[in-house]
Amino acid sequence: MFITFEGPEGGGKTTVMAFLLERLLAHGLSAISLREPGGTHVGEQVRRLLLDTRSDIAPAAEMLLFSASRAQLVEAIIRPHLQGGGVVLCDRYADSTLAYQGFGRGLDLTALRQITRFATGGLTPDLTLFFDIDPAQGLARRQGSGGMDRMDAQTLDFHHRVRDGYLALMAAEPARWVRIDASAPLAVVQGTVIQVVGERLSARGMI
Amino acid sequence: MFITFEGPEGGGKTTVMAFLLERLLAHGLSAISLREPGGTHVGEQVRRLLLDTRSDIAPAAEMLLFSASRAQLVEAIIRPHLQGGGVVLCDRYADSTLAYQGFGRGLDLTALRQITRFATGGLTPDLTLFFDIDPAQGLARRQGSGGMDRMDAQTLDFHHRVRDGYLALMAAEPARWVRIDASAPLAVVQGTVIQVVGERLSARGMI
Repeated sequence: MFITFEGPEGGGKTTVMAFLLERLLAHGLSAISLREPGGTHVGEQVRRLLLDTRSDIAPAAEMLLFSASRAQLVEAIIRPHLQGGGVVLCDRYADSTLAYQGFGRGLDLTALRQITRFATGGLTPDLTLFFDIDPAQGLARRQGSGGMDRMDAQTLDFHHRVRDGYLALMAAEPARWVRIDASAPLAVVQGTVIQVVGERLSARGMI
Repeated sequence: MFITFEGPEGGGKTTVMAFLLERLLAHGLSAISLREPGGTHVGEQVRRLLLDTRSDIAPAAEMLLFSASRAQLVEAIIRPHLQGGGVVLCDRYADSTLAYQGFGRGLDLTALRQITRFATGGLTPDLTLFFDIDPAQGLARRQGSGGMDRMDAQTLDFHHRVRDGYLALMAAEPARWVRIDASAPLAVVQGTVIQVVGERLSARGMI
């Protein structure tokens, strides 16, 4: 079972993933937790390169580096672990490319989908959890108090486009996606995630 | 004017490119010579990564890394130099992806073309010189004398598929391609290249 975690930074994905991983392992499941880009030698080099040169990199080149990391992760780690009957948790996956580079930055969605299909060999998650938070609330959280300048407004507009993108992706594949209210208290979010994942595992006879 | 050099290693591309570059500069043209992957910070990092991990890298990931390097090279170097009226010589470009990864390794040609179009923004060479040499002759040159084992036969078969791929690409766009007989003596090859490039530059009023 392949589970991905999507949504803006600061939504609590990482904390909840660590919590879920521990629970799955405690149930005796063979579960691993991954992040994009990274998880392989190639992926970690790509991560370093993106951090190193982010400001100078062309949008198309950046997208292709993310996709190269993803292709290696799928081939070397995700697919073999799934074939062995394990559970894979992944912090961001193909939907991030569509939401951020596509809906957010305006790169051509059809091209992004074609490249993603090539990179993943068509492997899609069984379940995607969208950690949703109102962009203004998310931005305010990260910035503390104070008024918004022109740059903040651009950022806000970008994050609204990304969120609208995620909602459009959810609407197109409702069976795969579950929206998590990331503005709720952590204990509530954790409880919801455990329940959702537990139901899916149970339906597959894995617990 | 954008000129690319294609064909197997050992065909003399690099030597002839250096000769041509000198002639173009001597004519007062603003000419630069590039290689793939490389030519930018991102590209050189990708080259290092490919050399470093070649044996462990998934074919799709490798193709995407080549494409990321190409996207950066087009955006940062090739397109600006062409817009400034210069001449760009490039040792390998998109046709290498189609010939080696597509025809040679059997990756899906349609997907490769889609990704290449995304990476290059549709920028195609004005002239492509195919340094053609019979695969058996090329292999014999590189190996010296001696019989062929199973591995050599595989290599030969691969290089035949690559050459057939190049010939198919030439047939599809005859106006862009010129075949150079790379088995001819170096002075003959250089003379042919100077003549072909000179005619094209003259037709554009650049010399």
